[in-house]
This record gives sequence, structure tokens and C-alpha cells, in this order.
Amino acid sequence: MNDDLRRRPIGVFDSGLGGLTVLRALHERLPDEDLVYFGDTARVPYGTKGERTVLAFARQDAGLLVAQGVKLVVVACNTASAFALDHLSEVLPVPVLGVIEPGVATALARTRGGPVGVIGTSGTIRSGRYQEGLGRVLDAGSIHARECPLFVPLVEEGLMGHALTDLAMEEYLAPLRAAGIDTLILGCTHYPLLKADLGRTMGPEVDLVDSAEALAEAAAARLAADSLRRRDSDDRAVSDRSGEMKFLLSDIPWKFAEIGERFLGRKIDDVRVVELDELEATGRDLDPGS
Amino acid sequence: MNDDLRRRPIGVFDSGLGGLTVLRALHERLPDEDLVYFGDTARVPYGTKGERTVLAFARQDAGLLVAQGVKLVVVACNTASAFALDHLSEVLPVPVLGVIEPGVATALARTRGGPVGVIGTSGTIRSGRYQEGLGRVLDAGSIHARECPLFVPLVEEGLMGHALTDLAMEEYLAPLRAAGIDTLILGCTHYPLLKADLGRTMGPEVDLVDSAEALAEAAAARLAADSLRRRDSDDRAVSDRSGEMKFLLSDIPWKFAEIGERFLGRKIDDVRVVELDELEATGRDLDPGS
Repeated sequence: MNDDLRRRPIGVFDSGLGGLTVLRALHERLPDEDLVYFGDTARVPYGTKGERTVLAFARQDAGLLVAQGVKLVVVACNTASAFALDHLSEVLPVPVLGVIEPGVATALARTRGGPVGVIGTSGTIRSGRYQEGLGRVLDAGSIHARECPLFVPLVEEGLMGHALTDLAMEEYLAPLRAAGIDTLILGCTHYPLLKADLGRTMGPEVDLVDSAEALAEAAAARLAADSLRRRDSDDRAVSDRSGEMKFLLSDIPWKFAEIGERFLGRKIDDVRVVELDELEATGRDLDPGS
Repeated sequence: MNDDLRRRPIGVFDSGLGGLTVLRALHERLPDEDLVYFGDTARVPYGTKGERTVLAFARQDAGLLVAQGVKLVVVACNTASAFALDHLSEVLPVPVLGVIEPGVATALARTRGGPVGVIGTSGTIRSGRYQEGLGRVLDAGSIHARECPLFVPLVEEGLMGHALTDLAMEEYLAPLRAAGIDTLILGCTHYPLLKADLGRTMGPEVDLVDSAEALAEAAAARLAADSLRRRDSDDRAVSDRSGEMKFLLSDIPWKFAEIGERFLGRKIDDVRVVELDELEATGRDLDPGS
């Protein structure tokens, strides 16, 4: 494995800005690695849309990152992970990691016997992927999944801690509380921002699993296993380097600065807007098609 | 003007399914006309997205309808009307109507002296187009505009009459009520479904202006003025014919049947899913570009 390959960035894509929570976790776990983020802000959200559409978008998103010369593609979006990970693993020339398996593994490691809950978009929950993963260990009666479609707009409006969010949580989560779950997977990149609200609604005895951290751990393990971790010219770990972050977006939404900072925890610089034509072309370049 | 042209369908596009409220109003006003609807369900919503993106999408959407041989393009989406109508008027080979001017005209005709309120997505309100239109007659102090970003997801979740919707209305509309508006423009195709909720929140003295009806009236006038109204072979009005409706969508979302029926007031048949490639190509065919 040559140094050039090791020094390439890690690529992360998401349907929009929510995946910045994953970028942040990756930067904390692998601070010396360069990161390229693509947020498909022109076509966000993915969670309400059909499988074919999400697959077609994910191909373009991943193709764009591959064209940036990344050494690993991280699918930060739960819905894209649900519908496109198998396909991307087949067609991409670099390794690819999704957010579902790490979340499932963490939940199974942490549960004290269940039941286990998972919340996400309509697409993620209806794909059944989390349920399948958990079902390899738990019986079906111990798995409780709920679509929570309003959580994404509530977070984007910055309504954490607001009465509207409390009410929506009560609406969606009462059945999970009644089922007595001990672990709850946050199956959407927006949900880590609702941790405090979720804690209040579910109570302190329910362990909240944030897939972002689990995914960062999985990415570190995968890079190590494939000898793709960044090394200096003497093949030593680079401990004192702070990796660069580059941001590609397909649209600058009205509340970009505000929403972006909320997810990343710092100001976003160095943004390039990707034209739709460029995005469409990289998807085509990725053939063989689905 | 030949019969062939008169017998062509009217094309209607929207960012998603909300524009079906406009389709419904057009069918009621012009029952003998054929209608082709395109909903860009793969990339919905437009209301949170930037001007360049909305313009690029609207070009593709309108191009797709032109490729279907329509005699008139109706832009049902308020955000697309705000950002793309001027451009489309220049580049389309057929007349084009947006939803903002008819809404403004109706509000100005109905107000009993104002103030007048308008609610819509972030894009629509920040474009300032409604405010400009109203400002040709009213002074700035008599125009009250509010972004209501949660109304679209609340409608799509079917939460009309729900406590969550009541609370969101209170949050967004208290300033409009305090301002003592006598007329409120519903500046988004989703909002007609909230008429009952809006009536409860604003009180019976506030006149709610639904742009769908105003737009249908404007379309009828425009077709008459351009001699494009459907006629039989003896050049007489066709009063007993029920026009056909065709539906094109870029995605079949998870709750399509439920949401679609809610907006249209009847079951949606004859749906064709438009591939992204086809949509992108029709946008390019529409050159000269912006």
C-alpha cells in the first residue's frame, strides 16, 4: 500500500447537512485524516422517498466522492445506507461503510436484555434493515421500530427543547416507552441533536445509541485492517496533524450557516457548490449501473 | 389558431404533490380541458432551497411538460413561481402562469383596507415577491409576511386538526393576529388543507385567500385571450366533456397514495415515473440557458 493512497481523504456523503454529525465524530476519532463531505442539499430529504430514487441519488453522491480521489466512502445517511450500501459495495472501486451495521452492533453490545428500539425516517424504518440486523440476535418481539418523520424538520427549525418537539416525541415514542425498551438506536443523522429531548421523554434508564460514534469506530478499524491509515514518510502514525475538511454541497439552503454550524459544532468554510450536471455525470461514470 | 393546438393539454408542475390542489381547481374551472401534472417528488421540497437550485429544477420541470406538447404551463409551486417565472416566460415556447400574481390580485380585491398577511415557505417569503406585488397598492406597514416551514411536513403527516398543528400555528401566526390582518394569502400549495385550522387560529373575520382558485380563473382568462380554449370541430365550446388527467412523478414516495388522495380529493391513476435522466435531458433541451 503506497503512501499516496494512505494520504487520500475519507469521503462522507449524506442527503443533506445531518451527516455533519458523522463528519464530526470521524474528525474526533481520526483527527489526522483529511475529510471530504458531500451533502445533497438540492435533493434532501431522502427519508420520505422511494428505494429506486434513493439508490440513484446514492450512486451519484458516491461517484462524486470517488472522483475526488477518496480512499474510503462513508454513507452517513441512514436511508441511503438502507437502500444503497449493498449496491455501492459492488460498484465502488474503494471500500464503503454504512451507518446501520455499526449502530446495530453497538445496540446489541449495550442492551441489558432488551427490548431494543430504533427510530428513523419512513424509508429507513420501512426498509427493515435495522430490524434485520437486530433480529440476528433478538427475537422479533424484542425489536420496536418507529418512523418519526417530523423530527428532521423540527431539528432543522432549531426547535430542540421546544414544546412542539416535546409533543411530537410524546406522539411517536409513547409506544416505545410502554414496551419498556432499554436501548434506543437513533437511526437518523439529525437525531443526535435531540439527545436531551429524547432523554427527557424516554427517561435516564434508556441508553441512546448514536450511530455516528459507532461508525467512526468502524471506519478506524476498517482503515487499519486495509492498511489505509494515514502514515508519515517513515511509516509512522501522524499524531500531531489536524486533518483538513472540504465541503461539497448541491445547494446552499436558506438556513445553511445556522443549520450547518448546529450539526458540525463549528463554522463551515471552504464550501463548493456542485452543479447538478456534474453530479449526474459522476453517477453515470460509476457504471456498471444497477 | 388550429384545433390541434386547442386540444392540447394544460401542463401543471409542482415541487411535489401539493400542486394537486391547483390541478383540482383547474379541473373544476375548466372541466373539459385535459391536464398533465408533473410533481418533482424526487427532489421535493423546493421551499427550503436556494434560488439557483429552484431555477434549475423549474427549467427541467417546465421542459418536461413542453415535451408532452402542452399548450400552457402552470407553475403551481409558489417557490418556483417566485424564482423562475420571469425566466420561464422568456424561454418557454408556450404561455406560462404562476401562482403569485393571481393570489396577490385576489387579496387586493378582497381586503377591506388591510393589513394583509401572507404565509409560505422560506424561499417564497424571502424572495419578497408577494410583498412586492402587494406593495404596488399597500404601504409596507400594511403587509405582514411569515415563513411557516413546519406546515408542509405537518400536512404531509396528515396532522390537520392535531394539537401539534395548533401549537405550530400559534407559534407562527400570533404576530399576524396581533397585527390585525383582515386577509391572509395561503402562499403554498399545501396550505389549503389547513383552512379549517387556519380559520380557528385566525378567527372568522380573516379572509383566507387560496391561490389555487385564483390561478384557475387566471388560466381560464389566459386561454380565452389567446384563443386556446378547447373547442369541438364546429368551433363550439365543449361543455359535456370530462377532461383527462395524466400524472408524471419523479419518485413514488412512501405515502404517495395517502398524500396524493388528500390533495386531489380522489384516487390518482395513470401515474408514470419519470427517470432522472429524462428530466435532466428536457432541462438541457430548453436552452438558451439562464
